[in-house]
Amino acid sequence: MRTFSATSSNRAAAIFSNEPSRPKLVTSSLPGPKVKDGLAELEEVFDTRSANTLVDYERSTGNYLVDADGNTFLDVFAQIASIPLGYNNPELNRASVSPAMVRAIASRPALGSFPSTDYADLLKTGILKAAPQGLNQVFTATTGSDANETAYKAACIWKGTRDRGGRDFSTAELESVMRNQTPGAKKYSIMSFSKGFHGRLFGSLSTTRSKPIHKLDVPAFDWPVAPFPQLKYPLDQFASENAAEERRCLEETERVLDEANDTVAAVVIEPVQAEGGDNHASPAFFRGLRELTKRKGVLMIVDEVQTGVGATGKFWAHEHWNLPSPPDMVTFSKKAQAAGFYFGDAGLRPDKPYRQFNTWMGDPVRALLFKAIYGEIEKHGLVERTARVGGYLYRELEALADKYPQHVLNLRGKDRGTFIAWDCPRREEVLALAKSKGVNMGGSGDAAVRLRPMLVFEKHHADIFLDVLEGVFKRLS
Amino acid sequence: MRTFSATSSNRAAAIFSNEPSRPKLVTSSLPGPKVKDGLAELEEVFDTRSANTLVDYERSTGNYLVDADGNTFLDVFAQIASIPLGYNNPELNRASVSPAMVRAIASRPALGSFPSTDYADLLKTGILKAAPQGLNQVFTATTGSDANETAYKAACIWKGTRDRGGRDFSTAELESVMRNQTPGAKKYSIMSFSKGFHGRLFGSLSTTRSKPIHKLDVPAFDWPVAPFPQLKYPLDQFASENAAEERRCLEETERVLDEANDTVAAVVIEPVQAEGGDNHASPAFFRGLRELTKRKGVLMIVDEVQTGVGATGKFWAHEHWNLPSPPDMVTFSKKAQAAGFYFGDAGLRPDKPYRQFNTWMGDPVRALLFKAIYGEIEKHGLVERTARVGGYLYRELEALADKYPQHVLNLRGKDRGTFIAWDCPRREEVLALAKSKGVNMGGSGDAAVRLRPMLVFEKHHADIFLDVLEGVFKRLS
Repeated sequence: MRTFSATSSNRAAAIFSNEPSRPKLVTSSLPGPKVKDGLAELEEVFDTRSANTLVDYERSTGNYLVDADGNTFLDVFAQIASIPLGYNNPELNRASVSPAMVRAIASRPALGSFPSTDYADLLKTGILKAAPQGLNQVFTATTGSDANETAYKAACIWKGTRDRGGRDFSTAELESVMRNQTPGAKKYSIMSFSKGFHGRLFGSLSTTRSKPIHKLDVPAFDWPVAPFPQLKYPLDQFASENAAEERRCLEETERVLDEANDTVAAVVIEPVQAEGGDNHASPAFFRGLRELTKRKGVLMIVDEVQTGVGATGKFWAHEHWNLPSPPDMVTFSKKAQAAGFYFGDAGLRPDKPYRQFNTWMGDPVRALLFKAIYGEIEKHGLVERTARVGGYLYRELEALADKYPQHVLNLRGKDRGTFIAWDCPRREEVLALAKSKGVNMGGSGDAAVRLRPMLVFEKHHADIFLDVLEGVFKRLS
Repeated sequence: MRTFSATSSNRAAAIFSNEPSRPKLVTSSLPGPKVKDGLAELEEVFDTRSANTLVDYERSTGNYLVDADGNTFLDVFAQIASIPLGYNNPELNRASVSPAMVRAIASRPALGSFPSTDYADLLKTGILKAAPQGLNQVFTATTGSDANETAYKAACIWKGTRDRGGRDFSTAELESVMRNQTPGAKKYSIMSFSKGFHGRLFGSLSTTRSKPIHKLDVPAFDWPVAPFPQLKYPLDQFASENAAEERRCLEETERVLDEANDTVAAVVIEPVQAEGGDNHASPAFFRGLRELTKRKGVLMIVDEVQTGVGATGKFWAHEHWNLPSPPDMVTFSKKAQAAGFYFGDAGLRPDKPYRQFNTWMGDPVRALLFKAIYGEIEKHGLVERTARVGGYLYRELEALADKYPQHVLNLRGKDRGTFIAWDCPRREEVLALAKSKGVNMGGSGDAAVRLRPMLVFEKHHADIFLDVLEGVFKRLS
């Protein structure tokens, strides 16, 4: 029975004094007139074909998104999983007007050349305080794509340096690289997994294997791909099949690496393939991949752009795996608001300066914000609470799956906080109906509904969400 | 004779009430103890080998940069040409704490899916108010590399759509693209010029041809390169040779395009090759390139990441060219603080949604800042003033070149505002000595000194700079 929890309600009040108590629609249909007119105006100068709605961020609070017409939605998609602590979070609003923030905005440094006196402290008390165990250094970037591509570059530079065995660049390397030819421009590659998503710039897109629409017509590097396990649900009923599938994928990964004949600099993988349809694999699979990459001398990059910062019930999703040694690099963005990659081995710093460099090297605005985000997460115990709320949400969704098996298939994300998804054959209708009842949800892959609420999503929000969802299922049955 | 101008001094007072009147060094040597210790501390977690100094941005004002020890430098490098209006510009500081800015920081939207009610207005009164003539639409990004790569993607998607001639994606395209193979992943290319610099991610780096150190070990697309004119100085003494060189380069560009056999989607070029050594070409060359690209059905992307926003004495450097028709795309970043690409032809919007998309699609923090920057530039007539100050600075540097021909070779940037450079055989000594006398300058290419002051650089700043520079030359003579 879903009951309103006084404890979590009080806790919510501690963060948001004015969060709405429920969704509320004020227009007779969606989109309402102001959203419609506003999007038409925006369309004149900016492509709006992917726009879900037009948002009044001033009026949006906590877990609730308010559109231009004043419709109030419970938001379990959170700007494609990128809002960590709710709209107009008072502590983040305060952090946004600090003197350090003003400097970061109006006098933005070129951090590689002219770092600020407070940058070491800002990193140590912010981005690096949140660092995964064993990874005590960071290269800062601006977006998830940028974070992944700079990690890929670090891997290629590391491999090139190692393959040269200590000698300096040859004349042939120095000359050929200006024509984008070997031996200066290496034929190295980054191996990724089927259905993986790692961004949309040219290097990151070459590792993205989610959907054709992300890739068509764009030139791509001929980089290898390995199969990601396709598990059967419920997991406990298919334990041996799933273990066999994961073994098969690891063997195939090894075969692909061997076939690539020592040209793979790194393997990149998401803890949960989010954009590709919320595909999970077991900790044993990831431990196997860590063992394999170590054995083959290939770096392991864990892309935590979507999974990082608490949503899975651990601060970093790869903490669920009990790895014998940490990943070589962990990339982050989205809910961190800042972006970049963590690493531990000093050998991943290029052997010479200016090999990995750019004008801004990240954004101190977002570094300051991540520090504030981390502080709030710690102060309110939001990762642990997300684990609990997610556990509750998962159990209630299991009950709904029993009741409406035609709408909830392959429920996944058990013990992964609120990072929950299921396959939904009539997904587009479900999403539209939920929206018409005041819940903003998102999809992923071909058929999945993915829940990506914020870390301020509590049990009573889950109850509202579950009630709306059940109403949608009833209506469709 | 360099005389202190009362008019420009008053104008400076109008913007900065507390700008230092001159450089001032307080430590007996550089780096001072606090810079040294601070960089050592930062080095533990962040690569500082490219760091010039450690900056106290709180104490930096207008054209003056203050380091951790309190040394005050006249800054004519401006964070690698990215600070538009001085440190702690009061109007930009004010814009940094507006309610809209707080929302943009703490409740950052996924602009492609959930744009804000005020985004159309923000674009129209900011980024698009500053747009080059004929280009009334924008795709927003986060950095110069990101701006260029999304422009390249737009070009490839445009070409793919055109080459398909209206038919939908084939099964072969949909299937092959997931393996990064043709026909889905096209063998299209972006042609760039020798010594060009367009960024450092995988696609942009494939068009960058500045220095080996930028490119070594990183896989690159096998994309074509054409020669950029190598002009002889002074221009008026080598008019016919230079015209012949530019004709040769255009003919060679045409040959490279023909050889590429209709695989080139776009040509990308800087108005002045900045990172590559401040290499100029004449307006006639760029008009010739516009004519050639039109004739060949290839898009022309003008990379104004470093040249844009006033430094050349026009808001966009390509305004100097009198093009018969505008470039197809113009990319921007750095002094705009915002980033992206402008375009005019609606055909450059992909034919389907989600082909060009990412989570954040730019950053409203920087869109708000660019609006404030543009407003200040207009209000104070800073582009016109930069043209005048640049003219004065150039003439004085001509006089120094006559006096110290061994230190000032191939002076360039006449009638290009403060976007001035020269070749300096003993560059590293000149830069270090200038710094020890309180002037922060930068280099580019193999031998050039590049001046990149802000748009608040006035005649009396130029006088201080020129005095220091002459002192350096005397010392070295």
